[in-house]
Amino acid sequence: MNAEIIAVGTEILLGDIVNTNSQFLARRLADFGISIFHQSVVGDNGPRILKEFTDAFKRCDLIITTGGLGPTTDDMTKEIAAEFFSKPLVLHQESLRKLEDIFSRRGGTLSESNRKQAYFPEGCIILPNDHGTAPGCIVSEGGKTIVVLPGPPREAYPMFENYVAPYLKTLTDSVIVSKVLRVVGLGESLMASKVQDIIEGSENPTVAPYAKQGESLLRITAKAETEADGYGLIAPVEERIRERLGNAVYGTGDESLEAVIAGMLMDRNLTISVAESCTGGMISSRLVDFPGISEVFMEGAVTYSNQAKINRLGVKRSTLDKFGAVSAETALEMAAGIARTSGTDIGLSTTGIAGPEGGSIEKPVGLVYIGLCICGKTTFIECNFPGTRDMIRLRATIAALDLLRKELL
Amino acid sequence: MNAEIIAVGTEILLGDIVNTNSQFLARRLADFGISIFHQSVVGDNGPRILKEFTDAFKRCDLIITTGGLGPTTDDMTKEIAAEFFSKPLVLHQESLRKLEDIFSRRGGTLSESNRKQAYFPEGCIILPNDHGTAPGCIVSEGGKTIVVLPGPPREAYPMFENYVAPYLKTLTDSVIVSKVLRVVGLGESLMASKVQDIIEGSENPTVAPYAKQGESLLRITAKAETEADGYGLIAPVEERIRERLGNAVYGTGDESLEAVIAGMLMDRNLTISVAESCTGGMISSRLVDFPGISEVFMEGAVTYSNQAKINRLGVKRSTLDKFGAVSAETALEMAAGIARTSGTDIGLSTTGIAGPEGGSIEKPVGLVYIGLCICGKTTFIECNFPGTRDMIRLRATIAALDLLRKELL
Repeated sequence: MNAEIIAVGTEILLGDIVNTNSQFLARRLADFGISIFHQSVVGDNGPRILKEFTDAFKRCDLIITTGGLGPTTDDMTKEIAAEFFSKPLVLHQESLRKLEDIFSRRGGTLSESNRKQAYFPEGCIILPNDHGTAPGCIVSEGGKTIVVLPGPPREAYPMFENYVAPYLKTLTDSVIVSKVLRVVGLGESLMASKVQDIIEGSENPTVAPYAKQGESLLRITAKAETEADGYGLIAPVEERIRERLGNAVYGTGDESLEAVIAGMLMDRNLTISVAESCTGGMISSRLVDFPGISEVFMEGAVTYSNQAKINRLGVKRSTLDKFGAVSAETALEMAAGIARTSGTDIGLSTTGIAGPEGGSIEKPVGLVYIGLCICGKTTFIECNFPGTRDMIRLRATIAALDLLRKELL
Repeated sequence: MNAEIIAVGTEILLGDIVNTNSQFLARRLADFGISIFHQSVVGDNGPRILKEFTDAFKRCDLIITTGGLGPTTDDMTKEIAAEFFSKPLVLHQESLRKLEDIFSRRGGTLSESNRKQAYFPEGCIILPNDHGTAPGCIVSEGGKTIVVLPGPPREAYPMFENYVAPYLKTLTDSVIVSKVLRVVGLGESLMASKVQDIIEGSENPTVAPYAKQGESLLRITAKAETEADGYGLIAPVEERIRERLGNAVYGTGDESLEAVIAGMLMDRNLTISVAESCTGGMISSRLVDFPGISEVFMEGAVTYSNQAKINRLGVKRSTLDKFGAVSAETALEMAAGIARTSGTDIGLSTTGIAGPEGGSIEKPVGLVYIGLCICGKTTFIECNFPGTRDMIRLRATIAALDLLRKELL
């Protein structure tokens, strides 16, 4: 079954608010195996809403709208849905009584404009609003259905879960399940090229790559009669992808890189400390993102100045003079220094040129050294990151965490 | 002039990500006096994108797309724009050279799939991508124009500001100028309530509030014949707003809180060090965001464990035992300790409960103490932040920076 989501509201059209309703509905419809090929936003304008219904029903059988159920004359989604199906609006006594209750509890009386919230297209299913005054409704005719939901998420989401979801279950006979593989250390395009044939050759499940904050994700999505069948379709494709990408696949679903690392450290009872120059606290901050990290994360040092590298980490002045602050030698002494002074099993360090100033021909902006000391054994990598100061720092942070992960594997 | 926004991407259609690009573009187009009556979302599907262009151009003369500029065969927005106007794709040497540069700096070579990012519809205006590999473009023919932007906001927003905004200015005969006031320490709704009458009473300039990463912004936008006239309209409204909000207005335009603080520190030749517990490196990271901070920012310490607070900062064990790690007393000793051990004029500290675990009735999740020591004089604030772990840490970071700013004023 195909559906479309139409958000009605001038405040979305003008960019006053973000259209989070459409995201919520898209996700939930996907859970029911309902495909969405189109979403749109229109203002509170009768003819435009009517035209949108007409256009959308050329492509699908189910429309879900949000917004335009308020008491003002501006609000007309329900009225236009009735007009589309040529159904009169009729008073729903129970909804009127609920409205009167709400208003009397607020110490007021129902105004004429509020009464319109108790009128519905004849023969529709009424969706109670447990969190506001405007009920929704489901209007159907000739195999075409419009589900009319209110705009505010705190009203629309529970109405969907409590009254629309059970209705949708009766319409579909398949489920959609998906699994996300999280990939690090490969750019989106390099990752895609390694699995291009799998992406292109897959119909059920489908495989789609995307980028997210310096990481790459691959979503495998299957349609089947049951959840178990769906995961059964996903498993062999996941297997093939993992063969190609090896240990660049660090996790699945919502699992973060720091959660994976924290798990590895906690399993082996290894403690860690971090000495950051160019990343300036981002690595510590990422690790601290994981609740419960305090068992293994002992200390972070942001040693941005040379003096701090000497005083805090015991980096030798001669090393800084001979090789510079941005060098493999300094990165190694930083990693060993933080591990020693913090008394941890592992020391991780970064030093680099995040820009926009400070680059040279020998040491351009984007050059970053990452040092790692695990139980006295030190190693480093040299990286050249493209992008802005922000992106270079983010990429250095991810590369440092990934170096640690790979060494722990 | 009417425009439409078309977001291209299966990840939006499936609800994997929120369509924030359309909100950004809707706002910015409104700033140019361009009306939006329709927005839509389509997947990475050639025929559907083509149909969307055809439908949209029945209603408007300008289409702005985001997404579908990546290196994979899935990405085809630019190709479909070329097809719509029956223009061939031609190689743009400068873009190819830039791509080759980026890849050689990364230590790789350009793959065949990446080369497609250097091909553009013949005769188009090319929009450089200063933050990624995919340039955008502006394709026009017979009074109809498609502006093609990349999907990631960090690439699309600067491309819009730097290359699309100047182009849009040439299309309209009036100029729209705007000024953003940056506000900290007041929530968006508290800020809005203080200036509600100004927001509602303003037509030209208009005043619009919005929230951004824990801060609040007020955009004042005027339409006039010349830029000078526009700023002339803005000045008295800005004056009225500043009277209401006082020193909660910390800056204007793109000026960041860390840039304002770095400027104050550098002007007065004051050095700073930071000791973080619950914020875990976020304050250091924010300060290091400002290039040139190394003159005044000496050192950061992420002392997440009690042991690190004792060893690194000299917090007394008796203080931790008596008052707990999350207490005003610990925050004050942390601030004084980091200033003393790093030899800086200023020490700034945070300690709190970011959750989701670790809260109690006396010390609930969201309780954060911020300590500040300036030239030996210490002070603290106690905060109770709502929200998730992430949001509590972000709010604590901003509150700490704002405390420092206000003490320096």
